[in-house]
Amino acid sequence: MTDNNQTIPSISDIHDDALAARLQAALDNKTKPLGALGRIEALALRIGLVLGSETPVLEAPQMLVCAADHGLAARGVSAFPSDVTWQMVENFLAGGAAVSVLARQHGLALTVVDCGVRRDFQARPGLVSRRIAAGTADASVGPAMTPAQCAQAIANGREVVRALPGNALLLGEMGIGNSSAAALLLARLAGLDIDGCTGSGTGLDATGLARKREVLREVLALHAAASEPLDALAAFGGFEIATLVGAVLQAAQERRVIVVDGFIASAAVLVAQALQPHVAQRCVAAHSSAEPGHALLLKHLGLEPLLNLDLRLGEGSGGALAWPLLESACRILREMASFEAAGVSRKDS
Amino acid sequence: MTDNNQTIPSISDIHDDALAARLQAALDNKTKPLGALGRIEALALRIGLVLGSETPVLEAPQMLVCAADHGLAARGVSAFPSDVTWQMVENFLAGGAAVSVLARQHGLALTVVDCGVRRDFQARPGLVSRRIAAGTADASVGPAMTPAQCAQAIANGREVVRALPGNALLLGEMGIGNSSAAALLLARLAGLDIDGCTGSGTGLDATGLARKREVLREVLALHAAASEPLDALAAFGGFEIATLVGAVLQAAQERRVIVVDGFIASAAVLVAQALQPHVAQRCVAAHSSAEPGHALLLKHLGLEPLLNLDLRLGEGSGGALAWPLLESACRILREMASFEAAGVSRKDS
Repeated sequence: MTDNNQTIPSISDIHDDALAARLQAALDNKTKPLGALGRIEALALRIGLVLGSETPVLEAPQMLVCAADHGLAARGVSAFPSDVTWQMVENFLAGGAAVSVLARQHGLALTVVDCGVRRDFQARPGLVSRRIAAGTADASVGPAMTPAQCAQAIANGREVVRALPGNALLLGEMGIGNSSAAALLLARLAGLDIDGCTGSGTGLDATGLARKREVLREVLALHAAASEPLDALAAFGGFEIATLVGAVLQAAQERRVIVVDGFIASAAVLVAQALQPHVAQRCVAAHSSAEPGHALLLKHLGLEPLLNLDLRLGEGSGGALAWPLLESACRILREMASFEAAGVSRKDS
Repeated sequence: MTDNNQTIPSISDIHDDALAARLQAALDNKTKPLGALGRIEALALRIGLVLGSETPVLEAPQMLVCAADHGLAARGVSAFPSDVTWQMVENFLAGGAAVSVLARQHGLALTVVDCGVRRDFQARPGLVSRRIAAGTADASVGPAMTPAQCAQAIANGREVVRALPGNALLLGEMGIGNSSAAALLLARLAGLDIDGCTGSGTGLDATGLARKREVLREVLALHAAASEPLDALAAFGGFEIATLVGAVLQAAQERRVIVVDGFIASAAVLVAQALQPHVAQRCVAAHSSAEPGHALLLKHLGLEPLLNLDLRLGEGSGGALAWPLLESACRILREMASFEAAGVSRKDS
């Protein structure tokens, strides 16, 4: 899987000293003490750089929820049964899940992608079918997917995003067992101890967590040779993560603002960033989740989370909760008065 | 000032085990792992208790920005000149300040109260004149205000809120020098060392901060006898804080949700809570500011901030930034499906 020219687009460096200086000057000139809007100012700077504008406007934001099942779930690595994956897809589409409610609140268009759920869905608005298979293979027996499946899922993610309007992409996911895949990807690609990357996910008790850690150590050892990003992704899965990798790469290439949710969405960014090191420039980390691996993953990516609310739901719920802060950052740049325009005196000194 | 029956309403205990249990059961029954929405669930529980509803609806939220000048500012305790108070009032009303922009973003009605700015304003929509005097007296010479002025400012705040619609009040303020008043109130009412309560405010350098600390130590010593909440408030000021104390008490009595902003707005809550110990039950701390006293103050009140974004602007900007999280919490209660309704399986164990 080293010849991935077809699959992986080249992501440019968007660093721009001149634009950054103009954005910083605009922020410093707003009627407030220097830096008084704290992290909102850093956020405004980042969005301005991604969108290449001193007066950025976020347009038609897209919440993309990728769903798939995991063969490894059969090993008891999750507190919930695999059926919950398809049941939650139905819930997303019916509007009753957290991400549905929050997307509605903030006017985020919600697209659910079936990347390989163990159940067929009836076609309907808001659901995109890009099934690779009915769940990945059990990663404790062999690779979760073949190289061809992995490449196809990435291509699917790119194609889905290409067809979506707007200049901002919010990442979401659903897949019983996928905190295991994320932990394995983090341990392998960041070179961390697997135990520290592994948490209770949807709510394992201490016994369940110990079992999960044992299984993941075993899986990691089985795929000791899978050190390259795409090899690791194929080894550990899942289809929804691979599809999100493609979505992230496409959004990055188009210079969309990418809003990263929790541990699993972040794992997709980790893979994308390992493939193309300028991906993270386009990313905003919505929050730091209660899942212990997430803080390690964000640190590895050099992303500072906006929220710390002990969320551990996934779906894109954290991204949706943080979304108004991105809107605020843009409005600060566009709508706040300068000292001169408002006739406000500057600092005494 | 011990006879304050006229000024200070009695605030009841809204603790309600039965409602709390019903709210918790509703949250636990939503289609997500138990507790997976973290602090948003605690927020939903609190709002439900304040509004006395299992399906709370936030109505006509009011951003109240109280402004006044401080005699102590003449002692050089701020990085900005006193003129900035009236200039920023003009900026609030013209729509160019951070709180103006953020209130517009979130549909928060903005009311600016002149509680005693050193400049007369022309009457206009959105501005309420409740002037006590043209700024407080210099607290390093004598009390910032008389007991009668203090009682009048509190009565003003109550009256202003009584006339506003809705069931949620967001606190905002403007007043060059008011981080000094807040630091003095915190040190006195929470029994803390004044140096730890004192920060750079709008941006003092190290020399300026050392001077501010010296002045505040002197002021605190001068008013050593002002240990009761209203005596301390009169001693240290300011008119905008006293007006906010009244606003908080009125909102608490009416069981509005009170959204607390930064250090100065929190100092008003500190005084109100010292007068009536059930006030904080109605409060949501929007954020923890970069001003070092703020975390101490919130800890003293037992309030956990929603955001930690290194804000240090005041105006109500942090409350406005956090506002969508309150909306989200209510929508989670009102709109998310239960496991039964959505046909989603529960946890295996």
